[in-house]
Amino acid sequence: MTALETYIRENEARFIEDLKGWLRIPSISTLPEHTADVRRAAEYAVDQLQRIGFERAETIATYGHPLVYGEWLQAPGKPTLLIYGHYDVQPVDPVELWETPPFEPTIRDGNLYCRGACDDKGQTMLVFKALESLMRVNGALPVNVKVLIEGEEEAGGESIERYVKEHPERLKCDAAFICDTGMPAKDIPSLIYALRGITYTEVEVQGAKRDLHSGIYGGIAPNPLHALAIIISKLKDADGHIHIPGLYDKLRQPTQIEKDFWSTDTLGIGEMLVKEMGVSQTSGENEYPPMERIGARPTLEVHGIAGGFVGEGAKTVIPAVATAKISLRLPADLKSEEVFTLFEQAVKAAAPSDVTVQVRNLHGGEGMLVEPDSPPMVAATQALAEVYGKEPIYLREGGSIPIAALFDEILKAPVVMMGFGLPDDNLHAPNEKYSLDQFSRGLRVVASFLQKLG
Amino acid sequence: MTALETYIRENEARFIEDLKGWLRIPSISTLPEHTADVRRAAEYAVDQLQRIGFERAETIATYGHPLVYGEWLQAPGKPTLLIYGHYDVQPVDPVELWETPPFEPTIRDGNLYCRGACDDKGQTMLVFKALESLMRVNGALPVNVKVLIEGEEEAGGESIERYVKEHPERLKCDAAFICDTGMPAKDIPSLIYALRGITYTEVEVQGAKRDLHSGIYGGIAPNPLHALAIIISKLKDADGHIHIPGLYDKLRQPTQIEKDFWSTDTLGIGEMLVKEMGVSQTSGENEYPPMERIGARPTLEVHGIAGGFVGEGAKTVIPAVATAKISLRLPADLKSEEVFTLFEQAVKAAAPSDVTVQVRNLHGGEGMLVEPDSPPMVAATQALAEVYGKEPIYLREGGSIPIAALFDEILKAPVVMMGFGLPDDNLHAPNEKYSLDQFSRGLRVVASFLQKLG
Repeated sequence: MTALETYIRENEARFIEDLKGWLRIPSISTLPEHTADVRRAAEYAVDQLQRIGFERAETIATYGHPLVYGEWLQAPGKPTLLIYGHYDVQPVDPVELWETPPFEPTIRDGNLYCRGACDDKGQTMLVFKALESLMRVNGALPVNVKVLIEGEEEAGGESIERYVKEHPERLKCDAAFICDTGMPAKDIPSLIYALRGITYTEVEVQGAKRDLHSGIYGGIAPNPLHALAIIISKLKDADGHIHIPGLYDKLRQPTQIEKDFWSTDTLGIGEMLVKEMGVSQTSGENEYPPMERIGARPTLEVHGIAGGFVGEGAKTVIPAVATAKISLRLPADLKSEEVFTLFEQAVKAAAPSDVTVQVRNLHGGEGMLVEPDSPPMVAATQALAEVYGKEPIYLREGGSIPIAALFDEILKAPVVMMGFGLPDDNLHAPNEKYSLDQFSRGLRVVASFLQKLG
Repeated sequence: MTALETYIRENEARFIEDLKGWLRIPSISTLPEHTADVRRAAEYAVDQLQRIGFERAETIATYGHPLVYGEWLQAPGKPTLLIYGHYDVQPVDPVELWETPPFEPTIRDGNLYCRGACDDKGQTMLVFKALESLMRVNGALPVNVKVLIEGEEEAGGESIERYVKEHPERLKCDAAFICDTGMPAKDIPSLIYALRGITYTEVEVQGAKRDLHSGIYGGIAPNPLHALAIIISKLKDADGHIHIPGLYDKLRQPTQIEKDFWSTDTLGIGEMLVKEMGVSQTSGENEYPPMERIGARPTLEVHGIAGGFVGEGAKTVIPAVATAKISLRLPADLKSEEVFTLFEQAVKAAAPSDVTVQVRNLHGGEGMLVEPDSPPMVAATQALAEVYGKEPIYLREGGSIPIAALFDEILKAPVVMMGFGLPDDNLHAPNEKYSLDQFSRGLRVVASFLQKLG
């Protein structure tokens, strides 16, 4: 048995106690009455970092809740890893559905129940404990480490975004590590290596100069709602193909390994998603497997259409103006601004000639793709394989993780997203839990990851 | 000069005074604080009928404002005419835009300004005065007359609808006469001979069992808003053609006279409508003249689309359910219920296979077409030609006049819609007026109409 393993075994009970202490602080970032609790939770994290032996560990004031920053940079010649986590938690309503009080950590059947047990105090604490173990056993860490923990992840994350944008030099690193995700099942170690970006737009269609009555004008009036229906039906067909010229041009072909993984879908992820939607089969580009469509294909979705009358009963208005909110999710190769331009052109080309159209870019964000053979990904892969006894799978997420995209964009470092949550951890819901096995394995994975990175 | 003309000339100043007395009563049917005024206006009408010499003249209590009913049935062997009008008026806001107080009748430049001056006290009073003149001069009316005046025309008209449905025997007649419409210009006498009906529907589309996040499900999820766009774009194309199989089958071809009138459009009605819409040209089936499209063609219009997110900013929801309000305006040959069935079939045929669709019939109403060569229409035509010195034009309205459709449906009698309002009478707006010339000519037309009918 290694000295590291011995240290972990001897101290694991205390690790859980340290986590429990943190969990008892109700650091709900969206509720003003918990502002002091949020601050206490930040200070608890600073204290943890100091105990590990970080040369710098402090709270950083923001317009919102404080950030926690720590650094240990005494491994010259070794890479620098930026570690992210968050210490704020979701509200607990409906509180009557909790089997034990939401801020009283309780162990049942090998799980630790508490708000934040997984998301993200539990996951952040296992990283702290990996760092502690390495430091105690070796007197040093195998890599240089910067830690940045936020208290607004459940509240929009504005402060960390501003901080990262304003301090790229301070946060300079060779890789970033985010421990805030999960695995498909407890025996399926996984790494997220891609996120989709987004272009979120609003299309405004103008017909007549004022609302019209369909009795008087029906048959000769432009109808912006009808024009929007025509535009939208031309942008994407019933089989999910997007008809925006140029959109697919820069889309990189997935690797054969990815294709094989998606088409075999041995984990039954497609089936699980179908069940979750409550439908009989997936919609969209059915010539591609579900995982490919979510992770590696662009999609176009209408989110809402405004204009005219949608109240109870009947009103025969032909509105002067109607708007639609339409977004595209974009694999990393497709850039948000470029896609917006293509989208705008396609909307204008699809519009009937009797209306005028404006297209607004409400917001955009880039996707991300980490090369699985980059050194930090290789290190994470090996660490997972070592602890779980099997090779991890590589997953693409269909949505965005803003902090990951931010690190990618500002710090230009590969981002390792490796977390140990499970699908039944009840994140954001009553009876949130974290598997003690996952905590235990996770901290061993992280310790091994840091060693391999060094 | 006829005795009738002599009587009218000698009494015309008093006729206007009688109208002014009625106009001073602020009978706003939608404002509860005017309930007593509405009743006073009803009693004023009863008094007018009694003075004419009606054998029966009374108010009829309803759940809302009273109806006024009068009858004179002493012309055996002659037809019976049912006369409709309304004594309630619109609110007067914004009151500061009135040049003279809204309920102080004021004559300027040959016009009588007051709320209700035209709509519909002025028009109803000229009918009363035609009846009075005939009675005084001849000691009898040329036809049997029933008068039904309502006080809820500006408030939904529920009471008269119930009354007509419950008392078809009492209201039995050979023709009905509605004096609540206008003419395109003061030198263009006109008759409305057709109205469109309506089928007003709600289409509900269901996708997944709950709202979904487009990051996680975008690419495999059914999107009901997108499905609605596809359905709507298939129901009607950008050129206004409706693709509902069978819809046009029962549509009667207009007569050559109608076609010629519409295509020459010597009155420039098409141009006027374009200007009113503030557009450069009409939309829709441009192979048909505008008047034909409004009066004699069915139209399909989307009035609103609900579901998802339409607030400020961006939300990436894929809604589980979306609904659209869609109506069709129908020339008289197309029956509301039959069209609903065709519509429902077309919607289901147009729906993508990954959603389920429900179509609801929110309400329907039939159109109407009075044969221009029916005896009451011939009598009205001759009376207009006599007084205005030119043949009247025949117009189709694109909307509905519920009371006309109701008389048509329940009483099965031809409905003459002949009114003397002008486009600049400011109905429902500040500074409503009625041309004294139109009042004067109108009462002569109505007197002549009654004589010819007898």
